[in-house]
Amino acid sequence: MSPQITRPSPLRIEPIEGYSPAIGRLVCMLTYARSTTLAAVEGLTLTELDRLHDADSNSIGALLAHIAAVEVSYHVLTFEERSLSAAETDRWSAVLKLGANGRQTLRGHPLEHYVEQLAAARRITLEGLAARDDDWLERSVTAAPKINAHWAWFHQAEDEINHRGQIRWLRARLPKES
Amino acid sequence: MSPQITRPSPLRIEPIEGYSPAIGRLVCMLTYARSTTLAAVEGLTLTELDRLHDADSNSIGALLAHIAAVEVSYHVLTFEERSLSAAETDRWSAVLKLGANGRQTLRGHPLEHYVEQLAAARRITLEGLAARDDDWLERSVTAAPKINAHWAWFHQAEDEINHRGQIRWLRARLPKES
Repeated sequence: MSPQITRPSPLRIEPIEGYSPAIGRLVCMLTYARSTTLAAVEGLTLTELDRLHDADSNSIGALLAHIAAVEVSYHVLTFEERSLSAAETDRWSAVLKLGANGRQTLRGHPLEHYVEQLAAARRITLEGLAARDDDWLERSVTAAPKINAHWAWFHQAEDEINHRGQIRWLRARLPKES
Repeated sequence: MSPQITRPSPLRIEPIEGYSPAIGRLVCMLTYARSTTLAAVEGLTLTELDRLHDADSNSIGALLAHIAAVEVSYHVLTFEERSLSAAETDRWSAVLKLGANGRQTLRGHPLEHYVEQLAAARRITLEGLAARDDDWLERSVTAAPKINAHWAWFHQAEDEINHRGQIRWLRARLPKES
């Protein structure tokens, strides 16, 4: 018999195989949040992903790029235990801050592009979390000692869910035949 | 010396006094999510709370009422271990489902009204969680056995954060002098 791959049940938060207990519960939350993000954008066309609802809105595509970029920035902060370098801060400024620069630069990609960005970031997250334990999760983040690693990763899900709420709102208002 | 009341640090997820360890971490998340909701609506007037951005939008006030009602429905589901009664389902239909009925009925209240609803629901949540332990948190919910209690309470925060994302978006688009 081949070993069965254990996936978190979508509707349970509990320790899961391959992670220490508190990290496993966190992975359940991250996984659930991501599944709802992907469900919220399923089937969107490039035109729909790029659409700006109004002059101050972020496109759904930009919000997806932002979610992936926040996750990568938390790799740096919690796994590499350092702040973003000046070059990274500069390179990721538009996608981390969104707004006017993001509206200009974060566009022109099909859904697969964003889904791959999200999956690539998530692979590193899960590998990083699998290699660590609950003591690590509770420790303060070296480069940002007011937060601990658990808050950092909760906040990743929390920021994603916040933007997913906006994505759902924006999607419901896409032109019917764009 | 009077005993110091321990409050969760806003930027840490960790076990806290008065709760079993996993429940304490969850309370940190619920507390953080709530603090951001309250920050997102601070200072809004009744007119602003009632404003409908477009014909399909929920008002910010309705979203606040919804957040409190979802929390109360999870008291029933996880603390009272039962489904909503027919009378409750009927009474809470507009606020739990939002949409057209909610747009008609969930209005006319100042911010204090919603803040008190939220605080009243949260008091019961914290009392209920303080009286229970991590084994309870992991158990399936009797009236909804696909979910466990930890997912139910994570989902409470998750739904709140989703709507907080929408509240921020709507608040940024309120008329400047309403």
